[in-house]
Amino acid sequence: MSHTAEIIAVGTELLLGNIANTNAQVISESLSTLGINVFWHTVVGDNPRRLKEALDIARRRADILITTGGLGPTYDDLTKQTICEAFGQKLILHRDILEDIRAFYEAALHVPMPENNTRQAELPEGCTVFDNPVGTAPGCAFQCGGVHVLMLPGPPHEMETMLRRHAEPYLRELSREVIVSRDIMTFGMGESSVDELLHERMAHMTNPTLATYAKPYEVRLRATAKAESAEAAEAMLAPVCQLVRDTLGDVVYGTDVSGLPEACMRLLLERGMTFATAESCTGGLVAEKITALPGASRVYRGGVVSYWTDVKSAVLGVPREILDTYGPVSEECARAMAEGVRNITGADLGVSVTGVAGPDADERGVPVGIVYIGLATPEGTFCRKMDSGRRRRDRIQGIATNHAYDVVRRYLTGLPV
Amino acid sequence: MSHTAEIIAVGTELLLGNIANTNAQVISESLSTLGINVFWHTVVGDNPRRLKEALDIARRRADILITTGGLGPTYDDLTKQTICEAFGQKLILHRDILEDIRAFYEAALHVPMPENNTRQAELPEGCTVFDNPVGTAPGCAFQCGGVHVLMLPGPPHEMETMLRRHAEPYLRELSREVIVSRDIMTFGMGESSVDELLHERMAHMTNPTLATYAKPYEVRLRATAKAESAEAAEAMLAPVCQLVRDTLGDVVYGTDVSGLPEACMRLLLERGMTFATAESCTGGLVAEKITALPGASRVYRGGVVSYWTDVKSAVLGVPREILDTYGPVSEECARAMAEGVRNITGADLGVSVTGVAGPDADERGVPVGIVYIGLATPEGTFCRKMDSGRRRRDRIQGIATNHAYDVVRRYLTGLPV
Repeated sequence: MSHTAEIIAVGTELLLGNIANTNAQVISESLSTLGINVFWHTVVGDNPRRLKEALDIARRRADILITTGGLGPTYDDLTKQTICEAFGQKLILHRDILEDIRAFYEAALHVPMPENNTRQAELPEGCTVFDNPVGTAPGCAFQCGGVHVLMLPGPPHEMETMLRRHAEPYLRELSREVIVSRDIMTFGMGESSVDELLHERMAHMTNPTLATYAKPYEVRLRATAKAESAEAAEAMLAPVCQLVRDTLGDVVYGTDVSGLPEACMRLLLERGMTFATAESCTGGLVAEKITALPGASRVYRGGVVSYWTDVKSAVLGVPREILDTYGPVSEECARAMAEGVRNITGADLGVSVTGVAGPDADERGVPVGIVYIGLATPEGTFCRKMDSGRRRRDRIQGIATNHAYDVVRRYLTGLPV
Repeated sequence: MSHTAEIIAVGTELLLGNIANTNAQVISESLSTLGINVFWHTVVGDNPRRLKEALDIARRRADILITTGGLGPTYDDLTKQTICEAFGQKLILHRDILEDIRAFYEAALHVPMPENNTRQAELPEGCTVFDNPVGTAPGCAFQCGGVHVLMLPGPPHEMETMLRRHAEPYLRELSREVIVSRDIMTFGMGESSVDELLHERMAHMTNPTLATYAKPYEVRLRATAKAESAEAAEAMLAPVCQLVRDTLGDVVYGTDVSGLPEACMRLLLERGMTFATAESCTGGLVAEKITALPGASRVYRGGVVSYWTDVKSAVLGVPREILDTYGPVSEECARAMAEGVRNITGADLGVSVTGVAGPDADERGVPVGIVYIGLATPEGTFCRKMDSGRRRRDRIQGIATNHAYDVVRRYLTGLPV
């Protein structure tokens, strides 16, 4: 049976533009993986009348309603009360939940539970309780007249924890089929070119399906199969993944990996190698992307942000003649920066980025968007020049960072840099 | 007259969870500043039947409908057609717009305009045209039966450009009043404490209003006044800003500034000073935050990401005895790192971060969440110890980065670090 879901986010802060509705995105992606169609997102404020209206509209057009927000202890947290009224459910105090909340306060927050938190332990009679290991508001699910209602908390961290732990297993039970996805990651080809190369094959596929998603500066392909078992689904996915690899070639850099930095981390770990960074126009972004990953210290030694030209010579040892003759944004300087950081950190690989992120051209007239990536290795030093054109500063920095990791990835897999 | 708006985002990629609905956030924030209530956000896919349903619901409960997305040239971009059908408007070809699109293709994209882009030049008869200087899809606005309908493109960059340039002036015309806001930025006090201190005053205010927004790791207060002129509104805001400063004290770090890095940049520029960074657990994030700002090179010389202990000694010159005796996560090491980076870069100030971002405690058993911030200055070296508790890695890194800038900010304004 095919299900249709609507996601209702409750919170005035969303309507004021204080935060983006990232919860709807996270839930949508999860439901898409579970094979559940999402046709609507709705956002309402902390207002029971309008929430009631949203529920009345939603239950007519969807059979799974997922709400986020409004489960807190204060007077304006009215999701549970409003849903129970709309669906004729009785709200009752769950004593065991109350004890959990009290224990959470004492153990994690080191304060006694305020009395108004008692309201958080009130849940619909006979519901499936979703406990909240990272906060105080429990969630729940119940069925009424063929409609499943799931209530999740609003804080993204709590919502996502409860989604993975409780809501996904609950929803998976509603469907007999197993759904398995593979994310095939590419860098170096635009979404329209990827589409064009795969369009004919993709258009006729119903199971497995293959969809493209443009991530910032790269393209992710998601292959999804439905089958009676995970093994059967995986067997269906293998030829699709192979087809993508055969069609797109070496722009494919990995499967089920979060991005190029993680792909590089895996390759470096396999080879027992370390790297270091020397950055100018990316200003620390290349370093930040790898150190955001747990375990980065096994492959990443450190780096230098040589923003001023003096720092390039004093810290990285870039020769004065190179800076004077070719300027800081040049192939020669990129090479010397990569070699310099490799030297001072003792890493196996040194990767460098120097370019013009804008808003203005550099002093020598190198235009915005020109970036050189250097890579110093035991076999010699390589360089890639990229021209991203006149874009916004943060975009140039983002693209250049991906290019830096792509150079590392291609070197480590024996491809031309 | 008070207006009520609904934002309808059109795009299957939103329902698949491929992207978050950041357009709704940006538009909501803008409308909030204009004094227009937003009571609903709706998201529908590229499906004319469901978009029609959304429009029918929205026009009954709001008098301003703002759509984003579905203005592209391809077969699934159906927003204009569906809206015109729903509101009985005629879609006609605007020849001057067609010439604009053709010119954009040739000048910016260096290719002739594909013929299917002709559809983008079709707009409702008699509408107000919103031209698109950064893309090909023009937007528009019309009024029908007391409801204003504004269509904006989906790509966030194009949407925001058109919002500022056309939609905001159009909406401002609907109201005679001028609305002026001031963002008062604070760091170092939780949202609930800020609320508690200001609650009594805030609760009774209607014009100007004062609202708190929890940004990641800090609290922003927005004071908003409506008046007949900008001068009158500003005069009304001055005492509110003063009240906030008097009540919250030196946790207020600035007004109308994007964050602590920009506040520090302004202070350093005023004083003609430069700084440099030495980072361990933040892995380049402190450097990245300042270099993300245009003009950072006037105050930021560069930095070192000393992820491995060897890099701390070899590049920053942290004495071996300090590393052996106190360990890399210690006040002594933070001080030496700050002094080291100040030395090698020649900056006026050196700021350092060393701590445990997790997921595991460090080798010496320093627990996750402990971070030391060092600041080397011409007057000596300072250190702040922070304990963020056991949180997610990216949160600890984010909080530590803000603490680093807060230390710089407090030093530069003569406050105790």
